[in-house]
Amino acid sequence: MTHRVYNFNPGPATLPLPVLEEIRDEFTDFQGSGMSIIESSHRSPEYSAVHEETISLFREMLGLGDDYYVMFLGGGASTQFFTIPMNLLTGGKKADYIRTGTWAKKAIKEAELFGDIHVAGNSENEEGKFNYCPNQSQLDLRDDAVYLHLTSNNTIAGTQYHTFPVAASGSFLVADMSSDMLWRKFDPAPFGIIYAGAQKNLGPSGVTVVIMRKDVLEMCVDGLPTMVSYKTHAAKDSLFNTPPVFPIYTVGKVLKWIKGLGGLEVMEKINREKAGLVYGAIESSGGFYSSPIQLDSRSVMNVVWRCPTPELEQKFIAEAKAEGLSGLKGHRSVGGCRASIYNAHPMEGVKALADFMGAFASRNG
Amino acid sequence: MTHRVYNFNPGPATLPLPVLEEIRDEFTDFQGSGMSIIESSHRSPEYSAVHEETISLFREMLGLGDDYYVMFLGGGASTQFFTIPMNLLTGGKKADYIRTGTWAKKAIKEAELFGDIHVAGNSENEEGKFNYCPNQSQLDLRDDAVYLHLTSNNTIAGTQYHTFPVAASGSFLVADMSSDMLWRKFDPAPFGIIYAGAQKNLGPSGVTVVIMRKDVLEMCVDGLPTMVSYKTHAAKDSLFNTPPVFPIYTVGKVLKWIKGLGGLEVMEKINREKAGLVYGAIESSGGFYSSPIQLDSRSVMNVVWRCPTPELEQKFIAEAKAEGLSGLKGHRSVGGCRASIYNAHPMEGVKALADFMGAFASRNG
Repeated sequence: MTHRVYNFNPGPATLPLPVLEEIRDEFTDFQGSGMSIIESSHRSPEYSAVHEETISLFREMLGLGDDYYVMFLGGGASTQFFTIPMNLLTGGKKADYIRTGTWAKKAIKEAELFGDIHVAGNSENEEGKFNYCPNQSQLDLRDDAVYLHLTSNNTIAGTQYHTFPVAASGSFLVADMSSDMLWRKFDPAPFGIIYAGAQKNLGPSGVTVVIMRKDVLEMCVDGLPTMVSYKTHAAKDSLFNTPPVFPIYTVGKVLKWIKGLGGLEVMEKINREKAGLVYGAIESSGGFYSSPIQLDSRSVMNVVWRCPTPELEQKFIAEAKAEGLSGLKGHRSVGGCRASIYNAHPMEGVKALADFMGAFASRNG
Repeated sequence: MTHRVYNFNPGPATLPLPVLEEIRDEFTDFQGSGMSIIESSHRSPEYSAVHEETISLFREMLGLGDDYYVMFLGGGASTQFFTIPMNLLTGGKKADYIRTGTWAKKAIKEAELFGDIHVAGNSENEEGKFNYCPNQSQLDLRDDAVYLHLTSNNTIAGTQYHTFPVAASGSFLVADMSSDMLWRKFDPAPFGIIYAGAQKNLGPSGVTVVIMRKDVLEMCVDGLPTMVSYKTHAAKDSLFNTPPVFPIYTVGKVLKWIKGLGGLEVMEKINREKAGLVYGAIESSGGFYSSPIQLDSRSVMNVVWRCPTPELEQKFIAEAKAEGLSGLKGHRSVGGCRASIYNAHPMEGVKALADFMGAFASRNG
């Protein structure tokens, strides 16, 4: 029996054990090819099938029509922070950004190199903390913005959009879904671009999925360096150059695993149940634990909470780790505790956490 | 016993079986951590040790002093084609490029977006083929070029620099070593930048190693997008954002494997012996096989040859494949046959190929 801990890290994060075991079992000989998938040519029939199937699974699960491209790119979501405005705003075009945390701030910084950027909503409070996602009435949108950028889930803050805002007419949504991509079904139609680094909800680090509507691709400027032009990758189905084979292959297996569970409807149900257990442990602690997050913005992926004192938080994290509950420390910029419970985090891990939270509160309350 | 073929693909390419087995064996529980390396936080002690050890191994094997940075970046070597000139030539500075094949041409195309580019040497013949690497006397260098760019090994053409040219004084070498990095020891001092996509001689696809001298880093312009600024990655030891964990981890294992064989001196001896076997099979075929490559430029990594007719080449490739010798087809742009025999390709595979070449020539000569 393999030794496994419950891994609550925010990303890279836990992956489904059946996926890991499948990779392990075929690692030196992929489907009788006599070589590992990581040794296969990216033009081989073996890898081509993996590549195409992974694209198809994204299409199927998100309900994407032929009017969307699905691309697999290197360099992390951080590379998209500048590539999107470089392709769409070069020449000083306008875009609106919602400022909901660390990653949104980084996206804004890069966009300012290329366009006229307006912060249409900002949830930072006086203490520099972000504890909600601005709703439609709290946004100040510009009619002539090319797009409205949002971060659908804020890994560090622990906030999430449960209802997406609507972009100004003539404009479209661009979403960084790095930490909640495929946690549930949603209508892709308002989104011109959806991007997500794989290492939270989809697979290992090393690949970013970029979903782009065809009309948006057509708006991209020409004359950019080949590798940062979306037109390059869309035209070549992400095979212009050698793609990150192993990360894509692993994402494909995670997607098949989700499909095998029953697809995104079932995934959402499981995710809500898991988050409910942790939020329940906070609410039922008689005030021992507290959530700093506004009720309507609490994340289903990254649950954050505080203990009565920083000392108790340290104790909580250390004792949890000793019981095989790993990675519960909040991000250094916000402190506190955080449980990242992405798609692949098992129910048993969340139950063990909720039980531990109850017992710890009783012992220390 | 795992079914394995001899894999002569040009990249992604064969990897050492002991490395693959080690990865497989620790895949669901890395060093007792209770999680896979691909599930570990990139800030965890487990991954940090892997990251630092891989950097140290590059330093040790290449004999790099403290005046060099070693960076691990996403996006493939193709991304470096534009990032290098963007950092060093923005504003129209000068650089010289040696044009020795497909990849050099791509590098030149990207550089022309940023700088004043001069082709200092060009080995393309009237038929559009590249069959040598221009030597010093064949180069027309500019004294005021920032750098001289070369491709040390041309995967498609089957040519390789065995003696590196010297850059103009005040200038430095920039080398794309994607297909022959670490095949032998060499003096890094003349090189300001060395870069290599991992998927040929170093590991799986998904990471590019960039080695940059500190004085070159200081020449890089400010104000670039964060992710394409070398200063970002050098300052953060390639941990500014989540790195491609699995590719780096695997490269580290390949480097340890090379070290375990006896290091680069032994690796070079093995590589020369392997290439000698294939070139020997060409030379001893009584003219059945022929090398289109000039004697002083023949690659130790990618050996290319022709059979008397294209029909015999097809037959060769098909019969070889049936005997477990896979990936011997030359690149579609040049035709013929090619054996890519990087560091990890086993001696037995090359012996089997040489034997097959002899037998095929006898049967069909």
